This record gives sequence, C-alpha cells and structure tokens, in this order.
Amino acid sequence: MTVTIDPFRDLADMEAYAAGATVFREGDAGDRMYVVLFGEVALSINGRRVETIGSGGILGEMALVDSGPRSATATVTQDAQLAPITAQRFTLLVQKKPEFALQIMRLLASRLRRMDALV
Amino acid sequence: MTVTIDPFRDLADMEAYAAGATVFREGDAGDRMYVVLFGEVALSINGRRVETIGSGGILGEMALVDSGPRSATATVTQDAQLAPITAQRFTLLVQKKPEFALQIMRLLASRLRRMDALV
Repeated sequence: MTVTIDPFRDLADMEAYAAGATVFREGDAGDRMYVVLFGEVALSINGRRVETIGSGGILGEMALVDSGPRSATATVTQDAQLAPITAQRFTLLVQKKPEFALQIMRLLASRLRRMDALV
Repeated sequence: MTVTIDPFRDLADMEAYAAGATVFREGDAGDRMYVVLFGEVALSINGRRVETIGSGGILGEMALVDSGPRSATATVTQDAQLAPITAQRFTLLVQKKPEFALQIMRLLASRLRRMDALV
C-alpha cells in the first residue's frame, strides 16, 4: 500500500532521519503522520517487527484518525526522508481528496488483514 | 464506534435477519457493507469471536475498502435489521461526506488497535 508521493515532495518541512533513528515510540501522543519519500522505516509492536515501510509508504496515520497514542514504534532502518502531514493537513486532504481518504482506508484495511492473520 | 443511523433508515432495501442467521462468511466475496439499525451481530475470525456489533455499528466495510474477501464471519445474535450500503453508494458517501470517510477510518483504527493488543 503506497501513495503517490509527488504531491508531498514540495513540503518545506521534510525531515531527514539517519538509520537507527526513532521517529516515534509506541504509546507516545502523536499529531502527525508521515509519507516516506525515500529510505525505509520499520514498525514494531511490543518489540515485534510487524512491517517495513519503503518509498511511498505511510506511517503514523492511526494517531490522526482516532487521536489515540502511537500504536507502534517506528525505527529508521535505511537513511530516510519523511514528509510529515499534520492533523490539520490530514483533515483538509480527507475533505478535498476522496482518493486520499480511500488510500488511508486501504492502508488500515491491509494492516488489519495482516493482524487478523496473526490471531 | 457507531455512526448516526438516521441517514440509513430510509433505504428501501433494508434486510431483516433472525437470530442465528449468517450475514456473510469469512472468505466470501463481498460487495456491500451494513449499518446495524437494531439487533446485534457477532464477528468471528477463525471461529473466534472478536466483536459484537449493536445499533449504529458497521460491518463488512473491509470488502468495500480493498475489494478483498470477507475478513470475518458475521452471525446475527439478536434479531436484527441491517441497511446494506453497496460499493457504489460507499464511494459516493466517501466523496460527498468526509465525516463518513473519517468514521470508517476510525472504525478500522479501533479494530486494528484491538487486534494489535492480541499480538
């Protein structure tokens, strides 16, 4: 599940992370999601790696959707550049771009199906 | 996670189910989701009950979001009336009602957090 990253390339506040850096930790409060422009980020829950996200992938959307704490820890596994999407921008994108809303739904559904398979 | 069910009450094609009936089975193809108007429906994955859904609750949204097979079996546990939402209507709702899209996202997020807790 990836998004077209071109619309996110022109954000002025892109963030660079070196391999080994932590983007956020499980349980933290979160006010933004991230689009991976390049590099790789791993998601872990209770110390168990559940997903690796590359270019065009999204992380951190859960905290924006339900305002809950981070559901996973995000660790950079290959030097990465991330485009943060604030809650305000997220809401605007959902309102103006139905396809963005559907992409987020598909992402959540794909993660849910993967977790279902582990139960 | 419930939706306001009033907008769904006027659908002409509401479906009545008696307790014990199966709405859909895990692995089936699915082309509609359902809003529970009244009654109760249980969701099971691999024979394990993962959720009970009452009035205002939604089921079957996964198959609409990613066109995949039903991720759970839905069994009516109390006589129920369900309002089906076809894929076409779902797409229209996402396009015209950003709040509906957000509700579906929140629902998926709440299910994902619950599954995460089981891992």
